[in-house]
Amino acid sequence: MLENTSRTELSSLGEFGLIKHLTQFIEITNESTIKGIGDDAAVIDFKNKKTLISTDMLVEGVHFDLTYVPLKHLGYKAVSVNVSDIYAMNGTPKQITVSIAVSNRFSVEALEELYSGIMLACAKHKVDIIGGDTTTNKSGLVISITAIGEADENEIVYRNGAKDGDLLCVTGDLGGAYVGLQLLEREKQIYVESPGVQPDLEGNDYILERQLKPEARKDIPTLLKKLDVKPTSMIDVSDGLASEILHLCSQSDVGCNLYEEKIPIDPSTYNTAREFNLDPTVCALSGGEDYELLFTIDQADFPKIKANPDITVVGHMTVKKDGINLITKGGSSHPLTAQGWDALLNKE
Amino acid sequence: MLENTSRTELSSLGEFGLIKHLTQFIEITNESTIKGIGDDAAVIDFKNKKTLISTDMLVEGVHFDLTYVPLKHLGYKAVSVNVSDIYAMNGTPKQITVSIAVSNRFSVEALEELYSGIMLACAKHKVDIIGGDTTTNKSGLVISITAIGEADENEIVYRNGAKDGDLLCVTGDLGGAYVGLQLLEREKQIYVESPGVQPDLEGNDYILERQLKPEARKDIPTLLKKLDVKPTSMIDVSDGLASEILHLCSQSDVGCNLYEEKIPIDPSTYNTAREFNLDPTVCALSGGEDYELLFTIDQADFPKIKANPDITVVGHMTVKKDGINLITKGGSSHPLTAQGWDALLNKE
Repeated sequence: MLENTSRTELSSLGEFGLIKHLTQFIEITNESTIKGIGDDAAVIDFKNKKTLISTDMLVEGVHFDLTYVPLKHLGYKAVSVNVSDIYAMNGTPKQITVSIAVSNRFSVEALEELYSGIMLACAKHKVDIIGGDTTTNKSGLVISITAIGEADENEIVYRNGAKDGDLLCVTGDLGGAYVGLQLLEREKQIYVESPGVQPDLEGNDYILERQLKPEARKDIPTLLKKLDVKPTSMIDVSDGLASEILHLCSQSDVGCNLYEEKIPIDPSTYNTAREFNLDPTVCALSGGEDYELLFTIDQADFPKIKANPDITVVGHMTVKKDGINLITKGGSSHPLTAQGWDALLNKE
Repeated sequence: MLENTSRTELSSLGEFGLIKHLTQFIEITNESTIKGIGDDAAVIDFKNKKTLISTDMLVEGVHFDLTYVPLKHLGYKAVSVNVSDIYAMNGTPKQITVSIAVSNRFSVEALEELYSGIMLACAKHKVDIIGGDTTTNKSGLVISITAIGEADENEIVYRNGAKDGDLLCVTGDLGGAYVGLQLLEREKQIYVESPGVQPDLEGNDYILERQLKPEARKDIPTLLKKLDVKPTSMIDVSDGLASEILHLCSQSDVGCNLYEEKIPIDPSTYNTAREFNLDPTVCALSGGEDYELLFTIDQADFPKIKANPDITVVGHMTVKKDGINLITKGGSSHPLTAQGWDALLNKE
């Protein structure tokens, strides 16, 4: 995908020229953005609201493989994973800064592709690009994004508020991004061994999109407000369901029972996982990159959410001494670990 | 400097373990930091003040060379260059996020060194570390820092307020960081060719410190307030005096006369530059990395600053059509360019 019809060398523009070129179409749309790109720092005014700050770094060869990740998708995903953290605080993302280190293997056109994905995601989430840094790298591409959001003080949801008896809920479905990655890795392997063979990705749009173009749950803070539900704790699912449950339990000082049969898994995720001889539950527990929201609510709020197709109750919180357990479909209980594997290797 | 007495592999801690290890001594001291590390996002409250955001990325092999930059100094410098941008808005830095991509060539002890420098600079500038990301890299070290600061709306100084007749002022002295770099590069070359020879850096403490451990001008916004001077425009000197003057002129839509004889250059910078057959003026114009503040003030404010040893008037702003010129010691005028070289190559 780096072979565009035209190729402009990065060196032909220089640092300031490149920044100017890439940022020329950036417009400021949020009232809170007083000053964006172009000064030593950006200026923001959230008035009486609190400011939320989150940051993530994506590294070529570690977080993405450009042999199958289009640059536009990569830009989109880089924004998604960052604004997802703001939604996980029950806040609204408003601005981002974008820093990029890039080797001269990339052309100006390649960076334009990357930026077009970044700007598409920004438009979707109504986020302004207010600053950044563009620099050379000796090899590979590194993207570092900081997301800035706002929230009323009484709306912010931390990880540490879950209590015994709270219901554990998750949005959407899980495991798809991981299974999508397996598919892409397999087709890459086939391509490496037999370059003439066309990739067989047909019928797998859903899981491929889950991996390549994840959608941060912009709708959930709005939905929760509409339903008049304030979660007691919340986190986004970036490392896998198991890891996130452990974070909520550790910070809230509670235990948890997670029910395997309740974990929402899309049929295409399920079927492709089986094709790869993977346990779909393990994919949901440990796959990660789903960017769904995991949260706990008071039991009294159950009637408000139970009819909602976007939210699934997957377990409940317990006292700390009862531990953090996965209750399998067979009815037995296994301690949940960050990898999720240990519990499942012992499964009947 | 990577050869510590003990070496703990990064892999022995895992990502969460490493983050916990490196951040265990981080304390929150600012009232505006509501929630720091440990959730999806940090929470900040600047109440009626505006929020300032600035970001910088440092890449091994591009911005620093670990053969002569100690990791502790690197951490210190990474913070300095970021908070410098907040001072350049006439604001006060309050928080930073720190993202690091690192190859397994580095040990846990090496990252501890880096963090000790980061924390030293944070203590100096009274800044809280509120978040970040720690990830592996295939090769080399990348540091991305975002600085967050605050300012009263009427105190913020942008780059675009300079007007015809304003005086152009700079803090401290210039060119030292660049000459310090030449010295380090020379000693590295000697070491590469004859590893037995001890580096000859004696008597060069000042310029070496300017390069290795630059101090962002925390004192200047406070000083300006005390002197009751609000600059009409301001920028920090990261790319060299010439480049920064061009930014101020371009954004303020004015011209400028810069007087070579007024440019403040420390004697040790001057002497070492001559030793390297470099023009000290060129080092000041194009060397960069001085992290001094360059600003313009109304002529009426001159009496307030003239006795101050930290501030030098180096020129004055003109109408745009008069251009941006360097008036040499010989009295002739040359158009100033971003590199500074063109003007000086033609010098009598």
